[in-house]
Amino acid sequence: MTNKVTPWEVKGDVNYEKLVKEFGLLPIKDLPNVFRENVLFRRKIVFAHRDIQKIMDTAKKKKKFVMMTGLMPTGKFHIGHMILAQQFVFYQKLGAKIYIAVADIEAYHARGQSLGESRKIAMEEYLPAYIALGLKPKNVEFYFQSDRSKDSVKANSYYRLQNLLAKHATFNEFKAVYGEIGPGKMIAALLQAVDMLHPQLSEFEGKYPVLVPVGIDQDPHIRLARDIANRYKLNDFTQLSSTYHLFLPGLRGGKMSASEPNTFIAVTDSPEVVKKKINKYAFSGGQPTLEEHRKKGGNPDVDVSFQYLKMFFEPDDKKLNDIEKKYKSGEMTTGELKSFTIEKINSFLKVYQKKKKLAEKEIDKFIK
Amino acid sequence: MTNKVTPWEVKGDVNYEKLVKEFGLLPIKDLPNVFRENVLFRRKIVFAHRDIQKIMDTAKKKKKFVMMTGLMPTGKFHIGHMILAQQFVFYQKLGAKIYIAVADIEAYHARGQSLGESRKIAMEEYLPAYIALGLKPKNVEFYFQSDRSKDSVKANSYYRLQNLLAKHATFNEFKAVYGEIGPGKMIAALLQAVDMLHPQLSEFEGKYPVLVPVGIDQDPHIRLARDIANRYKLNDFTQLSSTYHLFLPGLRGGKMSASEPNTFIAVTDSPEVVKKKINKYAFSGGQPTLEEHRKKGGNPDVDVSFQYLKMFFEPDDKKLNDIEKKYKSGEMTTGELKSFTIEKINSFLKVYQKKKKLAEKEIDKFIK
Repeated sequence: MTNKVTPWEVKGDVNYEKLVKEFGLLPIKDLPNVFRENVLFRRKIVFAHRDIQKIMDTAKKKKKFVMMTGLMPTGKFHIGHMILAQQFVFYQKLGAKIYIAVADIEAYHARGQSLGESRKIAMEEYLPAYIALGLKPKNVEFYFQSDRSKDSVKANSYYRLQNLLAKHATFNEFKAVYGEIGPGKMIAALLQAVDMLHPQLSEFEGKYPVLVPVGIDQDPHIRLARDIANRYKLNDFTQLSSTYHLFLPGLRGGKMSASEPNTFIAVTDSPEVVKKKINKYAFSGGQPTLEEHRKKGGNPDVDVSFQYLKMFFEPDDKKLNDIEKKYKSGEMTTGELKSFTIEKINSFLKVYQKKKKLAEKEIDKFIK
Repeated sequence: MTNKVTPWEVKGDVNYEKLVKEFGLLPIKDLPNVFRENVLFRRKIVFAHRDIQKIMDTAKKKKKFVMMTGLMPTGKFHIGHMILAQQFVFYQKLGAKIYIAVADIEAYHARGQSLGESRKIAMEEYLPAYIALGLKPKNVEFYFQSDRSKDSVKANSYYRLQNLLAKHATFNEFKAVYGEIGPGKMIAALLQAVDMLHPQLSEFEGKYPVLVPVGIDQDPHIRLARDIANRYKLNDFTQLSSTYHLFLPGLRGGKMSASEPNTFIAVTDSPEVVKKKINKYAFSGGQPTLEEHRKKGGNPDVDVSFQYLKMFFEPDDKKLNDIEKKYKSGEMTTGELKSFTIEKINSFLKVYQKKKKLAEKEIDKFIK
């Protein structure tokens, strides 16, 4: 995928290429085989990084590393969230220790959402989804920012780090994360830095490489944590590694928004709803008339259905290439492409929903 | 004691009367008998308050209340610190639950002192001193800000409160505590508010009155905690009560400063050192010549030796009045007053030092 302004970018003025330069990220290349086997890397859905080499080397040698991620439990779990979930399932299979923070303190400060509501959404929507997508309870720390651990040594050391790190950042750095801030957003930003750094404390894993896969909009958090880590001398942190993935586009282009149901496909949507949403809303790269389409062909790069196939629902490269070619040539119509996509999504969701039902019984295994 | 500018005030420009008005404090009057029996209250060493009535009523009815205090473990424990220690021993005897926070996070941000150093000083200097002065291990929570509890439920809820409270304060309020602030001092000021408020959480004592006795310089902390408590709706806090005590004057007047040995008497000072410090440094209210002294008499209100007797070392009112009268009339000379004071201090320290030695074996009972 080229880095031009396309309908699936976060906002009209967001440009991946520009951001990569601005933030000082590097494009991902020279993939080890084990990464190449993964669709997200092979197709450059995960497209940029900081210090990923450290993780690739560690994974190659089958040595220990940590993958840390967070979830903001606001709104419904939708297929856009799966891009990240797929990554941690992948890293878990590679042998990584998985840390998942429920950012309920951030939801409180940034959205005014109560801790109880956050807990409910995390436990009923997110965690079962992760399990259904393949997350196993072994080697996972799934925790709440507001309730870190049942082990008091761990709990104290997590919040201690928050209290100590505060000395090593400035108000301006916190502003860079949220634009404008008050003490609440500041403490939430600080706690996110702690989420990323605390796995290396001796009370947790000790000094191992930590990878944080994020959407590019989260890079200010990464930069803040890296800068603080550089200055903080009470612990010798290995610098954080991070990767950046594209956003799965919303149905009409733009970012999927959990608060606007017609921009996303929920993982709980019925086959009829999926069919209606794709047919009615999915932005098309096809031509206005069938005649014109046969002549000029469609544009898969801006076609939302095609992007869904590419980013998630058609893992077979040969089949995907075939569709791309046929759509570009005009041999495949928008209607055919949409029908194929609807079928792929629905057959995925059928299996997924069954797995999610079963997953609800597994939840207790993740709360330690 | 009248509220004029005298040598034992914190700085030249601090005026107790002015501060009481400025901060909106009330003078303490109408003492219940049990408080009147205590020298500190009877002699108005503890001279002002906010909402003390609630505590007095609770104590009268022999109902539960909490006394919360903190110590900043920098420098040597000196006789100035005893004014506060005497108060918590008094409240413990009244039946209060005692919370004592070692403000090691504050020492880190405000003084750059390591947590390890703070722990060492707290355990070797402060806690044994408290025990020697009469603190019992029953009904005490003695804890470190950086390491709140061995009970993970308590630890999580203490730091959770810190993370939640942040939403309910402004940067300007934090500035009022320290003058100029960065994120470090802000988080330390926030944690002090948590120290005062968390005893009322259900994971700790629940909703009971909490008293915080402080020196008047600490009132900005109290006001911040009270204001946040008013705004915070996730917990129905009973508003904090506080009392304010005079500073024990430094030898040469002004405040005792732990970093200037000739301003204070350390609890470890030998009889010879005490004798030398009082004779050489203690500011005197006597006249320049014996003849003049006999004629005009001395001024006990500015005489540091007399203040030491009044504030700590002569609990017998009759004896103190007698000394005051004789010194004022010129019958007692400065030399005689100093000799008497030296004797009182040394006989106190002799017993105290023996008790402190024994106290070192009791320390473990306080660390839960």
